[in-house]
Amino acid sequence: MKPLIVVNFKTYERATGRKAFGLARKIAEVAKQSKTKWAVCPQHADLWMARYLEIPVFAQHVDACEPGRNTGFVTPYSLKINKVKGSLINHSEHRIAFKEIKSAVNLMRKYNLTSIVCANSVREARRIAKEIKPDYIAVEPTELIGTGISVSETKPKIVASAAKAVKKYGVKFLCGAGISKGSDVKRAMELGADGVLVASAIANSSTPKKIIKEFANALR
Amino acid sequence: MKPLIVVNFKTYERATGRKAFGLARKIAEVAKQSKTKWAVCPQHADLWMARYLEIPVFAQHVDACEPGRNTGFVTPYSLKINKVKGSLINHSEHRIAFKEIKSAVNLMRKYNLTSIVCANSVREARRIAKEIKPDYIAVEPTELIGTGISVSETKPKIVASAAKAVKKYGVKFLCGAGISKGSDVKRAMELGADGVLVASAIANSSTPKKIIKEFANALR
Amino acid sequence: MKPLIVVNFKTYERATGRKAFGLARKIAEVAKQSKTKWAVCPQHADLWMARYLEIPVFAQHVDACEPGRNTGFVTPYSLKINKVKGSLINHSEHRIAFKEIKSAVNLMRKYNLTSIVCANSVREARRIAKEIKPDYIAVEPTELIGTGISVSETKPKIVASAAKAVKKYGVKFLCGAGISKGSDVKRAMELGADGVLVASAIANSSTPKKIIKEFANALR
Amino acid sequence: MKPLIVVNFKTYERATGRKAFGLARKIAEVAKQSKTKWAVCPQHADLWMARYLEIPVFAQHVDACEPGRNTGFVTPYSLKINKVKGSLINHSEHRIAFKEIKSAVNLMRKYNLTSIVCANSVREARRIAKEIKPDYIAVEPTELIGTGISVSETKPKIVASAAKAVKKYGVKFLCGAGISKGSDVKRAMELGADGVLVASAIANSSTPKKIIKEFANALR
Repeated sequence: MKPLIVVNFKTYERATGRKAFGLARKIAEVAKQSKTKWAVCPQHADLWMARYLEIPVFAQHVDACEPGRNTGFVTPYSLKINKVKGSLINHSEHRIAFKEIKSAVNLMRKYNLTSIVCANSVREARRIAKEIKPDYIAVEPTELIGTGISVSETKPKIVASAAKAVKKYGVKFLCGAGISKGSDVKRAMELGADGVLVASAIANSSTPKKIIKEFANALR
Repeated sequence: MKPLIVVNFKTYERATGRKAFGLARKIAEVAKQSKTKWAVCPQHADLWMARYLEIPVFAQHVDACEPGRNTGFVTPYSLKINKVKGSLINHSEHRIAFKEIKSAVNLMRKYNLTSIVCANSVREARRIAKEIKPDYIAVEPTELIGTGISVSETKPKIVASAAKAVKKYGVKFLCGAGISKGSDVKRAMELGADGVLVASAIANSSTPKKIIKEFANALR
Repeated sequence: MKPLIVVNFKTYERATGRKAFGLARKIAEVAKQSKTKWAVCPQHADLWMARYLEIPVFAQHVDACEPGRNTGFVTPYSLKINKVKGSLINHSEHRIAFKEIKSAVNLMRKYNLTSIVCANSVREARRIAKEIKPDYIAVEPTELIGTGISVSETKPKIVASAAKAVKKYGVKFLCGAGISKGSDVKRAMELGADGVLVASAIANSSTPKKIIKEFANALR
Repeated sequence: MKPLIVVNFKTYERATGRKAFGLARKIAEVAKQSKTKWAVCPQHADLWMARYLEIPVFAQHVDACEPGRNTGFVTPYSLKINKVKGSLINHSEHRIAFKEIKSAVNLMRKYNLTSIVCANSVREARRIAKEIKPDYIAVEPTELIGTGISVSETKPKIVASAAKAVKKYGVKFLCGAGISKGSDVKRAMELGADGVLVASAIANSSTPKKIIKEFANALR
């Protein structure tokens, strides 16, 4: 199984609208040349790009609801119909209750969509893996988010134990938080990760192509 | 000033994806023929249609945040960039705190986007009009939502006093809840409304064209 | 094999841009409800709709050229990449040489795209069927094009002999020219057609939904 | 008036579909950073990108016809409706009769679209300038097309006299054929050009960003 690099575009200005598409194209180009596996998570209003890209497009959040009376919410059904392949769930900037995570993952499964649930501790990751079994769990220890300090470098034990806890239940493990260099990606893989979840290092970079290539090279 | 009919597509299956676009086209056709003024509110994942329609497209919800670290939220900036013209805010199915409504409306104003704030009582409407001054306030009394009972028929006093309360502050007033027939639209206008907010009567109808025409005729 | 109704949008104003999409949606709705098989041929600049429709989108013309130095021409490759499923070739308003038809059909085959070659006589149809073997041949006798006079009603012998000539070579046969009523469709099928090619009756109608339903009913 | 760089994508594989959009985004990025003026000419099936780009999108060819019965042709009206801003006309790979050029330019003018007519000699350019007065004339001497030999370097006299002949009639002049380096652009401007028309150097390059920047720098 090839490792997966998931790029969260957040709501960065340089990853919005047509610029988001340009960034996604750069990722798609490198993906093809390097034969590495990537997915992008643009904002809700930019999900149109799912119809144009050859790499999978994921939402940044999805709500646990079916079609009907749910003004302003994002249904798995609306993702499916619009060619979106999955979604982040419970990102540290968009936390939801455990019960809701469970409902959302189950609904995503019904529509054959991929779920990447975020967790901010090994403990939370283990519980989600055991009781919900999403496709992926991305672990981002709260204290490292947005610091530029890589979890794989400074807390290798956390990564290794998260990997073990999650994979024990047949769930794939993504290493998040502070992944900003090729060496971070490499280290994460050595510690047992099935991929990484990255945001600002690529989505808020003024030279994204360079970083994208660096990440791809780290997987060779 | 022409009255405005705002159609909330909610997450109805028959108002999702390409079907949402087909519905919006029917509205656009009637709008043109009858010279009436309409706006549509498709789901987030369907906002791509803003690039294709000649009538304004609004979001169903927007968050009070600027570009940056806000995974899974909808920024006014992302709407602007994607040709969306405004948004519903505080819909009864997606209530937010008063402070958040204020921040959202202010941010929408910064980007030259139209705000339609929903309120579920005359009292709430008055406070929003006075302290926030959005472009529109849509009043939907809680007890009537989704009942098919029209506020303009059963509670004409509420409508008239809401209209008065809101327009006093220079804010336009939309009559919501239970608007399902042409006569409801007509009555709402007589009671002082600047337009109506409608959902299921059009967005979940098996014969939407008929209803759309009926609404347009009511405005003549 | 279900009969196929192909709708050529030509460059009619009411079948251009967002209006073309609205028309295509009406066809898609009837197709689904009636379980009949349709394809639409919008203008080149409207081929974007192939990404949004569940019924197949065909081009109105394609050139026999591969990617490279061909300014202003339409390559089969560009159709493929943009989710277009096939093309009309040699339409009576856009005739090309026999040799070019052959090259175009061969190239379409290479990219797994469906070819519908038009012919304006039984003789031409037979030659194309025998020597080129496209997926479909649509026969439109020159003298009837745009007259509103149906070939199946006034020249049943032509239709029957065209059907025979074409199907002998394993090519499917579409009846064109003057197909404007449900009864025309019905008669064409009785005379051996595998479907019809229609244009103005639907693409330039002020009440297209009515005609679309009539055509669908004729196939039951 | 800022000089204009027009990039003809032809039907190059690496300038088709989503790849075409990625290329256009790179051009748009450099355009913004360098404050230079660019336009892109993607294939017909890729004109959807006009809705997504902030730089103008032109067609590679347009036909002199109004909406109606013109299967497979590209009307100025269909460009207008789809947000396309203009078109190349009479490109050396897609030559049309003088009379047709005239009709096409007149029709483009009616729809407020920009015409760039190509000519393969000073003589042809002069006649078009005098009798048709399009917005731009691009001169590409036949013997240099696709050679990589720059007209501005090897035939400076042709460029200078073409510039003079065209601008005399108030028409803007683009230098074409063999423009492949920044120095070609610079030289063309010195010889009186209002811009350049370039194709393979950018649209068929494996390192387009580098060349795009080089062109932009040449205009400073």
